[in-house]
Amino acid sequence: MSRVVKLAVIPGDGIGPEVIAEAEKVLAAATAGSDIRFDKTRFELGAARYLATGDTLTDDDLDAIKAHDAILLGAVGGVPGDPRLKDANIERGLLLRLRFELDHYVNLRPARLYPGAPGPLADPGAVDFVVVREGTEGPYVGNGGSIRRGTAHEVANETSVNTAFGVERVVRYAFDLARRRDRRLTLVHKTNVLVNAGSLWQRVVGEVATQYPEVAVDYLHVDAATIFLVTNPGRFDVIVTDNLFGDILTDLAGAVTGGIGLAASGNINPDGAFPSMFEPVHGSAPDIAGQQKADPTAAILSIALLLDHLGLASEAGRVTRAVEADIGARSAAAPAAGRTTAQIGDAITARLQA
Amino acid sequence: MSRVVKLAVIPGDGIGPEVIAEAEKVLAAATAGSDIRFDKTRFELGAARYLATGDTLTDDDLDAIKAHDAILLGAVGGVPGDPRLKDANIERGLLLRLRFELDHYVNLRPARLYPGAPGPLADPGAVDFVVVREGTEGPYVGNGGSIRRGTAHEVANETSVNTAFGVERVVRYAFDLARRRDRRLTLVHKTNVLVNAGSLWQRVVGEVATQYPEVAVDYLHVDAATIFLVTNPGRFDVIVTDNLFGDILTDLAGAVTGGIGLAASGNINPDGAFPSMFEPVHGSAPDIAGQQKADPTAAILSIALLLDHLGLASEAGRVTRAVEADIGARSAAAPAAGRTTAQIGDAITARLQA
Ligand SMILES: CC(C)[C@H](C(=O)O)[C@@H](O)C(=O)O
Ligand SMILES: CC(C)[C@H](C(=O)O)[C@@H](O)C(=O)O
Repeated sequence: MSRVVKLAVIPGDGIGPEVIAEAEKVLAAATAGSDIRFDKTRFELGAARYLATGDTLTDDDLDAIKAHDAILLGAVGGVPGDPRLKDANIERGLLLRLRFELDHYVNLRPARLYPGAPGPLADPGAVDFVVVREGTEGPYVGNGGSIRRGTAHEVANETSVNTAFGVERVVRYAFDLARRRDRRLTLVHKTNVLVNAGSLWQRVVGEVATQYPEVAVDYLHVDAATIFLVTNPGRFDVIVTDNLFGDILTDLAGAVTGGIGLAASGNINPDGAFPSMFEPVHGSAPDIAGQQKADPTAAILSIALLLDHLGLASEAGRVTRAVEADIGARSAAAPAAGRTTAQIGDAITARLQA
Repeated sequence: MSRVVKLAVIPGDGIGPEVIAEAEKVLAAATAGSDIRFDKTRFELGAARYLATGDTLTDDDLDAIKAHDAILLGAVGGVPGDPRLKDANIERGLLLRLRFELDHYVNLRPARLYPGAPGPLADPGAVDFVVVREGTEGPYVGNGGSIRRGTAHEVANETSVNTAFGVERVVRYAFDLARRRDRRLTLVHKTNVLVNAGSLWQRVVGEVATQYPEVAVDYLHVDAATIFLVTNPGRFDVIVTDNLFGDILTDLAGAVTGGIGLAASGNINPDGAFPSMFEPVHGSAPDIAGQQKADPTAAILSIALLLDHLGLASEAGRVTRAVEADIGARSAAAPAAGRTTAQIGDAITARLQA
């Protein structure tokens, strides 16, 4: 009896298709011989599609994607400053729309420094934490506007919207995760300035904490958190934070743990009402697109997150260990060691097949 | 004919009084024999004052402070979690109130890696940039609120307010500064998500840039900026950004350039309508207060910024060089080398007197 997973694949723009090709090889190798089968549908979405058709994400696209069990996304976004994209906001219209419409309230971003991975810190120590970034609220809601636009009297507002419902569900997820890990949870916010949103986050964490007495809780202002990320990243186990602070902290965390060429993420709807989406944290990097220069590792680690999400923990573990072995074999001086995108993907695939 | 500068001194809480004592020594030494005289008034403001009297910053305090030419501030804030401070927000009520009431629209935060300064990066290269952080708008305006507070239906909002007037004046300041420095200016924002505020910032920078053809302009999303701060901080000359992004970037920049024990700042009203305020970026650190453990260097470098602001560039330069020499003599292994706060202050003072 085989299980069929309907997987929507959105290779996207720039290096997206290149890294997704490797991720798909790894997915196949990791599940070969198992009773799981992936029924894949490709969706050609992104800047290229917008330029060709004027569409970013139609309602039909969205309905079709919703009919899947999970989504694998490469990267979306055109060449910065392309005048033809001036009126499009591919990020908001496609990536953020998917996160919001599919209620991806958990944006899961592990930060682990693999032995052998290059990094900017002189003495990072062991780094292994997860950022649980809220994905459907906060400053990302698109609740802003401007008046007297283009005049000397313009006023432009952006409103961060935070709800008890939205904060509690992601905080609960973070506590559950912390309980399965090293049982330490850090709330990051800016409660001394953003007093209303900050107070809500702090009260919710305080209340949920009473149900997780085994989890040690602390709090850091976002500015202080960035300091610790470079001076003592080992202090973190699970960080829970809002959409914008999570965006900032995870790019920094990616840099600290070997670069965003290694950083994977899951946009998760834990309720299962909608398909969850797995994607590298990096963007489409149009400047190196089509040249086989991109590191597919972040996309491949996103496969591990996907497998984990599907309950295939042992397959996920195999992917992670194959990546770990590949990274360990890289030389610190030349991380990609002259290998093409496909060569890195093939090397990791070969380890899985060995 | 001697010039008298009326200086308001707010030592504040925790380590504030200790570091300010050293800063005052340095100020005296740097201006000894010159025709400038400081007429100082002390203001006992902060958590301790609030606990004693219930006042954070009265209108009388504010009026008295306004009658000065400049302000030197140590640090304010009580012990985190002190229940007696539960209903007070010393940061908002005192520090931010001063910045807003005194129209400190430029929050100037230099980030320079002094030779010999310890830092977390393996290979930082030369680091010497300045963050021009907007100080009177953005997410800091306190324009938020919540409904159904304490219930499962609570909604907490925070509105970032950005005006053409407010953005333009700080952007212009940043361009002027870039012109006097290495002529490179980086706007940091999150224009792909905060589209209204981001668009305003981007358009203003674009317009002002036409008047500074000699300044090269680029743009980074805030998340990407944090990556560069740890992988290539040497790429920056002048960063201009909003109040919240500036808060985050400058703590990170402080960490990268030897820790916030070295990071100085000026809250500047360039129009001269109100006194500007100089303060270390660090907080009151109540855990080490009164133990002579704090590094007064950030407060002392704030004196250099104060002197510069008063037009005393050569005195400012002498302070900076004395600090530079002191840092250069520190050992990387033990930055404070067992010295007390006063010993560091005395050593820097002695270099000025030599
Ligand atoms: C592309 C952008 C909208 C997105 C975000 O800000 O969430 C990206 O930076 C990320 O972190 O996935
Ligand atoms: C204390 C706090 C309100 C303040 C800020 O956020 O501006 C501090 O972090 C700073 O950077 O000066």
